[in-house]
Amino acid sequence: MALTNPPLSLPIAPSIVTVFEQEHFQGKCLEFTSECCNIYECGMDNIRSIRVESGAWVGFEHHDFQGQQFILERGEYPNWESYTGALSYHTERFMSFRPIYCASHHSSRMMIFERENFMGRCSELCDDYPSLQAMGWFMPEVGSMHVQCGAFVCYEYPGYRGQQYIMECERHSGDYQHWKNWGSHCQTPKIQSIRRIRH
Amino acid sequence: MALTNPPLSLPIAPSIVTVFEQEHFQGKCLEFTSECCNIYECGMDNIRSIRVESGAWVGFEHHDFQGQQFILERGEYPNWESYTGALSYHTERFMSFRPIYCASHHSSRMMIFERENFMGRCSELCDDYPSLQAMGWFMPEVGSMHVQCGAFVCYEYPGYRGQQYIMECERHSGDYQHWKNWGSHCQTPKIQSIRRIRH
Repeated sequence: MALTNPPLSLPIAPSIVTVFEQEHFQGKCLEFTSECCNIYECGMDNIRSIRVESGAWVGFEHHDFQGQQFILERGEYPNWESYTGALSYHTERFMSFRPIYCASHHSSRMMIFERENFMGRCSELCDDYPSLQAMGWFMPEVGSMHVQCGAFVCYEYPGYRGQQYIMECERHSGDYQHWKNWGSHCQTPKIQSIRRIRH
Repeated sequence: MALTNPPLSLPIAPSIVTVFEQEHFQGKCLEFTSECCNIYECGMDNIRSIRVESGAWVGFEHHDFQGQQFILERGEYPNWESYTGALSYHTERFMSFRPIYCASHHSSRMMIFERENFMGRCSELCDDYPSLQAMGWFMPEVGSMHVQCGAFVCYEYPGYRGQQYIMECERHSGDYQHWKNWGSHCQTPKIQSIRRIRH
């Protein structure tokens, strides 16, 4: 059995996620197939473990899709550390989430620019880049970005570490003019690794 | 300028890393182009920030390449959180490191097996897999692994999070029969994402 992507003609399975109030998939649990803007209003205090059954999701620290972002792909997340990664500030909150629309990752495409408002030197990305600098980008920052197709996750540090920013062609017309638009938690233009989000 | 990999005929640049005793590239610093088995013997107490100039490296919690492993690719790591990622135990030590020999990532190839000693169902990997389950693997564990060509980094959780294990065809003949061989810090067969290491 080779692990290959499904042929493009296959229907996309529905996105399904199960969230648990306690670590290690214990306590009250709820299954979702679409967005949840406030887990508190669903009768849960917080989310402490997650099982993604299908699709790609993004989780948020605060309700209404605010605060730190966490990319969630199929698999098991038994505790807070497992879905966050290295973060510049530590907060064990996970209050809202939504599915991510992604193209086939073969057609994912975005532009990164040296300066804000799509100015300065630029590069087209259509692959996964664990180190932008190793692949030819000349500095540890990105000024602005435009997602032409699909969805990407951008990371503060090399090797897919640090703060995560989900960038989608379906949101803001794919335009991210300034680091202040990358997410309500973003405090720096540092971006050192970027990868496509796949179903 | 498109970010593409260098043509295969290009000579591989030497691996260069600069390590700093303080966060944010402050304090005493040393440059290395080959392995260091004990930073203490080089006159430094600990490493608290890192700049990888070229090549791919692996850092270790303890001297003599023991303890937790950290993949380090080209870029800037200003503090401990930036090079570790989400870990099941927190220890701010970084005492030894060495360069990683990797093939062109186009020819990187490994097999994963359901059970230890290369038994049970198996799959060949030759790409990056942010979620093994999304790509067809049927459980959140891997029993054993064999690296045929190049080097890979395996992660405990999806999306390249959690404990990291560096797997190289140049070490142990590429054979990793049991999770106890994946690294001296490994305490579980959980592997939910795997990617190639590139220069």
